[in-house]
Amino acid sequence: MKIYKERIDLESKSQIEFMDITDSVQDIVDRSGVREGQVLVYVPHTTMGIAINHNESMLLQDFMRILYKIVPVDAQYSHDLFELRRQSGSDGRSNGHSHCKAILLGNSEVVPIEKGKLVLTERQNIFAVEFDGSRKRDVVVQIIGL
Amino acid sequence: MKIYKERIDLESKSQIEFMDITDSVQDIVDRSGVREGQVLVYVPHTTMGIAINHNESMLLQDFMRILYKIVPVDAQYSHDLFELRRQSGSDGRSNGHSHCKAILLGNSEVVPIEKGKLVLTERQNIFAVEFDGSRKRDVVVQIIGL
Amino acid sequence: MKIYKERIDLESKSQIEFMDITDSVQDIVDRSGVREGQVLVYVPHTTMGIAINHNESMLLQDFMRILYKIVPVDAQYSHDLFELRRQSGSDGRSNGHSHCKAILLGNSEVVPIEKGKLVLTERQNIFAVEFDGSRKRDVVVQIIGL
Repeated sequence: MKIYKERIDLESKSQIEFMDITDSVQDIVDRSGVREGQVLVYVPHTTMGIAINHNESMLLQDFMRILYKIVPVDAQYSHDLFELRRQSGSDGRSNGHSHCKAILLGNSEVVPIEKGKLVLTERQNIFAVEFDGSRKRDVVVQIIGL
Repeated sequence: MKIYKERIDLESKSQIEFMDITDSVQDIVDRSGVREGQVLVYVPHTTMGIAINHNESMLLQDFMRILYKIVPVDAQYSHDLFELRRQSGSDGRSNGHSHCKAILLGNSEVVPIEKGKLVLTERQNIFAVEFDGSRKRDVVVQIIGL
Repeated sequence: MKIYKERIDLESKSQIEFMDITDSVQDIVDRSGVREGQVLVYVPHTTMGIAINHNESMLLQDFMRILYKIVPVDAQYSHDLFELRRQSGSDGRSNGHSHCKAILLGNSEVVPIEKGKLVLTERQNIFAVEFDGSRKRDVVVQIIGL
């Protein structure tokens, strides 16, 4: 049983963005040499989440629309006042809504590995989802198995 | 430390359905021989999710009502146009809402195993949740432990 | 490769409460002796969830407001009638909304461990989130690694 970890460096270009990291995760599985096991995909950030679904641009727009309806950008977030009042360390972003979206999505997903391949059907892709871009980001990919 | 994997075959009967797989997952834990460890329950599908909660039919209806309110079936989903336009491989389903519901729920849950038993309290059950049935489905159950 | 498990005992004071368990989880990682691995944080309850985000009180209020909007306390939940009708074992709580909130949040999160430390950035904290307090509760923390 072995354990193996790498990070994927990303750079989001827009405020909300689905970044497809499926191929990068599979490459890390390949380098790990694990044939039977599982991979943890985890974001060490408070305004990002992980999702697994079909990489179809209209579907991703549908999902964003749902998220905007649940967590509107134009509502008032107390957190935005907190950020405004901070003397240092604040980047001045009104990102209360981004945190709320990230909590709903969750920080991690775990995917099984079978014969060295991610157990994903044809239309499943792994996304690192940015809710407060553009920014430099990273994702932790950790593999456990044989 | 060992690793063990099986699939559970399911057949959903209705469009949205909570399928209680708790006993099947415990059976797989039994066959694995693992006494201390954890089980990953994962759906390799884009219109299903995993949930853990009380198997009480009125509660499940309450939760479905919440999901329908957040992600209405009668709203317009761009993904449904995508599916209509595909020349092949489309099954003609208007399932944009099913994908959105699945992303909100997530593809996996991890449950600890203690003395060979799932760490679940009396009212906790593991559900594979179908959002685009009826269909033949499967769930991956992977166990790591001693 | 080793596996190590402890429980954290908690007592929530209000109906909805974010309990920051980051330091307790790190203490368990320390006691496990694991340097490279991952920690599963799991709630064996049907009206609690796990979240990872910034421990900033105004942000937590923002998120609670979003959850109350999605799953209102003053709506009618069929589950509440179920609880009223039970002859025994019911605590008489109208907690249909609490179960629904818990399902949306999910029962578990998995966090990588690097050089003996949780991989959390400065503003990430791990919360056990109570949706039906006040109650005595526990959280299962399980570590796998080297």
